Amino acid sequence: MSIKIIEIQKRVYANNDAKAEVLRNELKSNQTFMINLMSSPGSGKTTFVVSTINLLKEELNIGVIEADIDSDVDAITVQKSGARVMQLHSGGMCHIDAGMTSEGLEALDYEDLDFVILENIGNLICPASYDLGQAKNVMILSVPEGHDKPLKYPKMFTKVDALIISKVDTVSLFDFDFEKVTEYAKSLNPEINIFPLSAKTGEGMDAWIKYIKNEIMGWRT
Amino acid sequence: MSIKIIEIQKRVYANNDAKAEVLRNELKSNQTFMINLMSSPGSGKTTFVVSTINLLKEELNIGVIEADIDSDVDAITVQKSGARVMQLHSGGMCHIDAGMTSEGLEALDYEDLDFVILENIGNLICPASYDLGQAKNVMILSVPEGHDKPLKYPKMFTKVDALIISKVDTVSLFDFDFEKVTEYAKSLNPEINIFPLSAKTGEGMDAWIKYIKNEIMGWRT
Repeated sequence: MSIKIIEIQKRVYANNDAKAEVLRNELKSNQTFMINLMSSPGSGKTTFVVSTINLLKEELNIGVIEADIDSDVDAITVQKSGARVMQLHSGGMCHIDAGMTSEGLEALDYEDLDFVILENIGNLICPASYDLGQAKNVMILSVPEGHDKPLKYPKMFTKVDALIISKVDTVSLFDFDFEKVTEYAKSLNPEINIFPLSAKTGEGMDAWIKYIKNEIMGWRT
Repeated sequence: MSIKIIEIQKRVYANNDAKAEVLRNELKSNQTFMINLMSSPGSGKTTFVVSTINLLKEELNIGVIEADIDSDVDAITVQKSGARVMQLHSGGMCHIDAGMTSEGLEALDYEDLDFVILENIGNLICPASYDLGQAKNVMILSVPEGHDKPLKYPKMFTKVDALIISKVDTVSLFDFDFEKVTEYAKSLNPEINIFPLSAKTGEGMDAWIKYIKNEIMGWRT
């Protein structure tokens, strides 16, 4: 099965928020729960996505939109999990918008999907400014990146509903302070839900899966 | 000693390349060698900068421009090394330009400096498009980020003269293939110089220091 690819040209971004709200309502009517998954490059987004799919695919019909500057290596990896996958190419831009997301959902034939994971471009700056019609924003911060990231990229942390702290199996090698990152993140966003985990070893995945299943069920009722 | 901070407002970026060329000529006339250091968030840029300063500060007069969206945590860390430091805030933008760099250099009183390290904003996309008047572009890719990054962020890899592969002391915990990253990077940029190292343990720093000293000496003659 080949992977669908849309090449996106530069567009006008007017009314992005309004488009995102329309899209969110359409997804809600269709009982499709979409998360916008954001992080730095190399935080382990794709491994996390595959692990999440494997833990939910027996209960839910799952689709994935992979957004990248270029290449489709992540889409190929995710497709092996059995989820329906499509690839968006941003054409060099550091973000995607609600219109591109809407095209991606159409290409995914999302009508029968319960859960869509939009894996955003690896970047902690630009994606924070674009509402994509998601039900929830999820961010991954990996242990090797360090606990000071909320201080450096505050806007992103104010926008997320769930913060995944990934690669916790590597913590012995890095100077990463869980208390400090929690304090910094909660000072920017008191409602933030934090899930330390390792998609590689499976440690901590249960709490994340419980949270997201609960959110999906709430969205559908 | 307090750290100088310039808050940059949104500007017109016309003629960035022309401004960068003027700045490069000014730096050359002054025998000041400037590198533009780029990477993802959390790749270990600041630890690498401090380690490089410590290995060169007896021979060279060194200054650092720290560019960030927000915060001055890196500037405070780097200042402890004894280098002259100033902080640029981009005001939410994902890149800086040649004009901002020029202002940063003025604030740094760079006339007596041999070597200036411009620590760019943590981002693999936007900074690749802006010439800042540097003598050389240097990029850090950390082992935890993975060897596939040249496939995903090709433009950045085509622009760099030296690629630092950082955090090599952690390689036992990650699926990182040095041969593959070298192959991918060289296919985009055959002239690229690659330095695997750990700024934390010091492993590999000697080859990097030898390279950059040689480049600095070449620039001054």
